[in-house]
Amino acid sequence: MTLPSRLSPLSSPGVRPFSQRALTTPASPIRRLSPLAAAAQAAGRRIVPLNIGQPDILPPPQFAEGMRQALNRSPIIAYEQSQGSSLLREEWSAYLNRTLALKTTPEQFLITMGASEALIFLFMVCADPGDEIIIFDPSYANYLSFAAIVGVRLVPVPCDEMSGFHLPSVEAIEQVISPRTRAIVICNPNNPTGTVYRKEELSRVLSICEQHGLFLISDETYREFVYDGREPLSALMLDQSSDRVLVVDSLSKRFSLCGARVGTIISRNAEVIRLSMVIAQARLAGPTLEQEAASHLLKTIEPEYLSGVIASYEQRRGALFSAITESAGLPCRLPEGAFYTLVPLPVSDAEHFCSFMLSEFDEGGETIFLAPADGFYIEPPRSRAYVRIAYVVDEERLRRGGELLGSGLAEYRKRYPSRWAHLPESPG
Amino acid sequence: MTLPSRLSPLSSPGVRPFSQRALTTPASPIRRLSPLAAAAQAAGRRIVPLNIGQPDILPPPQFAEGMRQALNRSPIIAYEQSQGSSLLREEWSAYLNRTLALKTTPEQFLITMGASEALIFLFMVCADPGDEIIIFDPSYANYLSFAAIVGVRLVPVPCDEMSGFHLPSVEAIEQVISPRTRAIVICNPNNPTGTVYRKEELSRVLSICEQHGLFLISDETYREFVYDGREPLSALMLDQSSDRVLVVDSLSKRFSLCGARVGTIISRNAEVIRLSMVIAQARLAGPTLEQEAASHLLKTIEPEYLSGVIASYEQRRGALFSAITESAGLPCRLPEGAFYTLVPLPVSDAEHFCSFMLSEFDEGGETIFLAPADGFYIEPPRSRAYVRIAYVVDEERLRRGGELLGSGLAEYRKRYPSRWAHLPESPG
Repeated sequence: MTLPSRLSPLSSPGVRPFSQRALTTPASPIRRLSPLAAAAQAAGRRIVPLNIGQPDILPPPQFAEGMRQALNRSPIIAYEQSQGSSLLREEWSAYLNRTLALKTTPEQFLITMGASEALIFLFMVCADPGDEIIIFDPSYANYLSFAAIVGVRLVPVPCDEMSGFHLPSVEAIEQVISPRTRAIVICNPNNPTGTVYRKEELSRVLSICEQHGLFLISDETYREFVYDGREPLSALMLDQSSDRVLVVDSLSKRFSLCGARVGTIISRNAEVIRLSMVIAQARLAGPTLEQEAASHLLKTIEPEYLSGVIASYEQRRGALFSAITESAGLPCRLPEGAFYTLVPLPVSDAEHFCSFMLSEFDEGGETIFLAPADGFYIEPPRSRAYVRIAYVVDEERLRRGGELLGSGLAEYRKRYPSRWAHLPESPG
Repeated sequence: MTLPSRLSPLSSPGVRPFSQRALTTPASPIRRLSPLAAAAQAAGRRIVPLNIGQPDILPPPQFAEGMRQALNRSPIIAYEQSQGSSLLREEWSAYLNRTLALKTTPEQFLITMGASEALIFLFMVCADPGDEIIIFDPSYANYLSFAAIVGVRLVPVPCDEMSGFHLPSVEAIEQVISPRTRAIVICNPNNPTGTVYRKEELSRVLSICEQHGLFLISDETYREFVYDGREPLSALMLDQSSDRVLVVDSLSKRFSLCGARVGTIISRNAEVIRLSMVIAQARLAGPTLEQEAASHLLKTIEPEYLSGVIASYEQRRGALFSAITESAGLPCRLPEGAFYTLVPLPVSDAEHFCSFMLSEFDEGGETIFLAPADGFYIEPPRSRAYVRIAYVVDEERLRRGGELLGSGLAEYRKRYPSRWAHLPESPG
């Protein structure tokens, strides 16, 4: 039976036309296996959570203090301004100027609900459906989700483990630029590889952006988490006069405030801020109390808090390295920053192994939750099955995690011999 | 000079290619004139804010209490689940079941950052760029922004002031359905008209949706704010088995918690919840503390709070009606619900008049902030210049607002005689 297309919806009342946008948005590789973890916990097993960047380090007490003050100050919890509270923009600007010797002004800030919303806004401002944004592969998995929901095509530039996932040549980057390219996104330090890009690498990307009329979107969520004596580097430090540089910042990791959802866009490009503001007005405003609490925190925070946190992650990095190389017997690259690393597993399908660990494996009532790394790639490597490991739990738990990974692999090899794959020669 | 298109970005490094999406997203008509208001306040003038639905009524103390408890319970403010906390989904479901005699379950809820994010998610789930969603004109201005940022075309069905902005016939609605139509949005009670749709009207729209394979997106932010003995009506009450019904709810207005940003999607359509969840994962999670506070509020709130608030708005509605009709000498429709009404002004351009009131007018150091109503229309009426007035301030301020509006119009008529327009015969 053929109906005129004008009437076709009538002919199929049973069909629910969901959008391709929603149907093709990838589920988070970090959270996709959460139902298995919930089931394991419900069955009484304890889980070492190595999948998600949810630190167990205490946030500075100033945040809760600022929130209590806000609650006492006024019983009314009114809409905040769409661009964020004036006070928070002032304090954040002052904080960056103080700690990074910058000259930002509050007008260059637009407060968002975490770095996630900042990135979604910037993708929306820079690109129309069908436009392209370049990322370095592997990158933070949710860049794929942001692109899917706003209809933007992410174009990967592969980064090789052999070079520590550092950036490839100018030619390799320019090769993927097309007339529809609008921006290059860089996450520095990188999630999931832990690579810290050098100043020269960032300058290389900025100069490509300037030459080709692109924006540089610099996701600096982990900026201060750099080790072995490295110094924090913001793209704002490259060229303080550039209106190509769009920085994304967040309090989530730096101050262990993941659940507060406080982020910002920073740019001296007033038109980017103005257009982000129009989009921000659509969702009215971010939560009021968190902005008051964050203002108080940024105003009163002492440098000792952050140096303590960084020292603690650096120690955990060492503990994870030993756990992976010694207890689990796997190759592991010592990450330069952030609190993640990619570890290659001797299996053909990392997700199957991660599911196995949650659903079938148990040693002394314990198991581990790992994130399969395929979801962090646009074009996953065929030769290796990686997992992303977050070292956000204490050293004892990391050591135990390494043991569980080792025992898990041994049991998996027995149970699923056809899914076993010998690791190629270690690249590091 | 002609360059091959492959190189065109190189040829114009000065051009910053912003997206059409951002360039065409309308600025909020409610917030667009805020810079003028800020300037007036900076110059020492007091402003009666009739532009924005930011109530001055105190929220129930349970919210702050719940937040203090959450702050005391744990110093870690961890990521919440992407779909919202289990507790909040349970408490919200129980609250609706208790107050509206429904049979919802927590799995039918997906917690969002206010109704705004809920609507953006539903637009994304139902429609791809270029698809169409039907709205009743005038509607909440930000529907236009949501549509612009997600690339959806809003198709208006005009509602006439002569019929109190109630819904037109089935034929008038069906006439605009095309093969690309995906949903019909209804805001009940309506912002900006204050119209409360009858059960028969909602059923009419649902049956059109069922017949044509569309979703009914029911924005119930103001559900309980209905007057003259009317009862709150949710689209969930029409047909509890329908998987076409997608309800948007929010604590912002009901509990004077605009700045808390707590909303939800409710639907028995599991696929809609699942796909909304994938989109929700992209932004990780809503703020944790507000969800704990909201759970405590919904668990412990007594019906007396809301009945007191409703009585207070009903009184304010009376005060506004007198102020507009007597002090300002304008026609005014007594709104049936919410806390807004549209008032026609005897001027040719409402926005120019609203700007005049903020920039030029002053009586005893005071003026008023009104929202031009054009931004609430897809196709603004040519014959009338409306403003939207929110009656969220106390009766004394509303009375004063009416006086200022009257004096403002008299002065405007003298200052801008060519912009004066006699009102057509009152339709009510």
